[in-house]
Amino acid sequence: MKPRSQYALHSCLLVLAISGCRPDGSPADPGRPEPRSEEDQITQVSIANGLMLGRYDGVVSIPEMLRHGDFGLGTLDHLDGEMIVLDGRVYRVRGDGVVDEVGADRSTPFAIVTRFAADGESPCPSVATLAELDARLDDTLPQRNNFLAIRIDGRFASLTLRSVHRQDPPYRPLAEVAKEQTVWTREDQVGTLVGIRSPLWAGGLNVPGYHWHFLSDDRKTGGHVLDCKLRDGRLRYDVRRDWRIKLDGSAGFNALNLSKDLSRELHRVESSRGDDPQRGASSTAAGK
Amino acid sequence: MKPRSQYALHSCLLVLAISGCRPDGSPADPGRPEPRSEEDQITQVSIANGLMLGRYDGVVSIPEMLRHGDFGLGTLDHLDGEMIVLDGRVYRVRGDGVVDEVGADRSTPFAIVTRFAADGESPCPSVATLAELDARLDDTLPQRNNFLAIRIDGRFASLTLRSVHRQDPPYRPLAEVAKEQTVWTREDQVGTLVGIRSPLWAGGLNVPGYHWHFLSDDRKTGGHVLDCKLRDGRLRYDVRRDWRIKLDGSAGFNALNLSKDLSRELHRVESSRGDDPQRGASSTAAGK
Repeated sequence: MKPRSQYALHSCLLVLAISGCRPDGSPADPGRPEPRSEEDQITQVSIANGLMLGRYDGVVSIPEMLRHGDFGLGTLDHLDGEMIVLDGRVYRVRGDGVVDEVGADRSTPFAIVTRFAADGESPCPSVATLAELDARLDDTLPQRNNFLAIRIDGRFASLTLRSVHRQDPPYRPLAEVAKEQTVWTREDQVGTLVGIRSPLWAGGLNVPGYHWHFLSDDRKTGGHVLDCKLRDGRLRYDVRRDWRIKLDGSAGFNALNLSKDLSRELHRVESSRGDDPQRGASSTAAGK
Repeated sequence: MKPRSQYALHSCLLVLAISGCRPDGSPADPGRPEPRSEEDQITQVSIANGLMLGRYDGVVSIPEMLRHGDFGLGTLDHLDGEMIVLDGRVYRVRGDGVVDEVGADRSTPFAIVTRFAADGESPCPSVATLAELDARLDDTLPQRNNFLAIRIDGRFASLTLRSVHRQDPPYRPLAEVAKEQTVWTREDQVGTLVGIRSPLWAGGLNVPGYHWHFLSDDRKTGGHVLDCKLRDGRLRYDVRRDWRIKLDGSAGFNALNLSKDLSRELHRVESSRGDDPQRGASSTAAGK
């Protein structure tokens, strides 16, 4: 244990960091880099290639994750569905499509969250596909080497969603498990797209480009978004420059070869609808 | 500004995080992920590929960098030499080999620092080359997907060091500037190797593998280490799982294509002695 005086110092520095003032109270020199606020963080749990190789055990508990953000996405321990963090609450979309809230006893092997505080609002485009939405945002939001949290509260003509089924050890690689994903389409939905845009160079560590999860206002529909038709909505974004990665410290993680380029497999996992995504069986497999 | 009560909450959470106890005082469940200490951080400024492309303007001020660590390495704004952070003091080894202390008015475009608190001590190998040292540490320290800070206080039969010369805009890429590096060899030195081992998958973001800077006890010799003969010493290491990256938020940085694989160029910059490193001219080019 450290002496109490050090805690006092820490809180003091925290206050200074948040207020953006130097200890002598003077503002920063104009020629110097702008001081960073501790509130600029976006925090992720583990790295994408870990998940790709089947590391589905929780690395950070849900309560600890919530200390780092109230907005974001990921999955739960045992790859137990798609996770959505919205307004400080944590939701799971199970492999059968059922949505429920996640308890404090759960943990996450992979997630990215931030304390959402919009830097700006952008006109919400009306788009026929998810690819169109991504392309429009590329034009609007040029901060491509920073992280972006994007929140769209909107009305959707349709959404193609997917989730995955809870796994038990010994875990198989994600590319294999994702073949058994459930895909379904829902029409006329009102809800929120929770989006994270990671720089392209973050591949292997996170999902490069856009990663979208959806949660309906009635909390009955959600999932990883494969496609959508967006009628209208409100689009807010939050640029994040302070990227924090909570690595898995286990011997199992440290033994992995994580340097392999798994970008193609990851892209397939994140965007594939499977062999025949429109088939009835896949759609009706999802609950409600 | 946020209300004072929130600061109180922050400090309270910090204390809880450090003490490893939950709010109700009970220890964490054995089945759950171990709570993380806020003290587990290693913080880097910007990413290696930014430096490779000639981003030499400061991103984080030296005082702000020191809030994140008292041990580490990097460079200064304008690529003004090799930086060593040791026991909370910041040193620069200029292109001419002169070592001096860095003032609070400077900043860094690329650095990695941590608050060094040894997790363990390891027998210090006697080695004839830097490559041998790296290989021995690979055997001893298996946490290859976490970050390691390594401190070796030792006696060196010889050290081959280099530094780079301060640049002015418009900046040229690092691979080009590094061709004009100064390389020199010093014998019978007593001092500290400041080392960071980054996971191999962190290439593009940091220097994959080992990155060593040296500072002599008399603070008169230092630099980026290209080679060394280590007689004996004390070796301490610190495993870090909470990796934080302070990204450059400038429009210039955001306009860069940072996805290109520059690993070969980076390896050359970090380990090349130039055309003829042993020649007298190169050695005498360095100060003193």
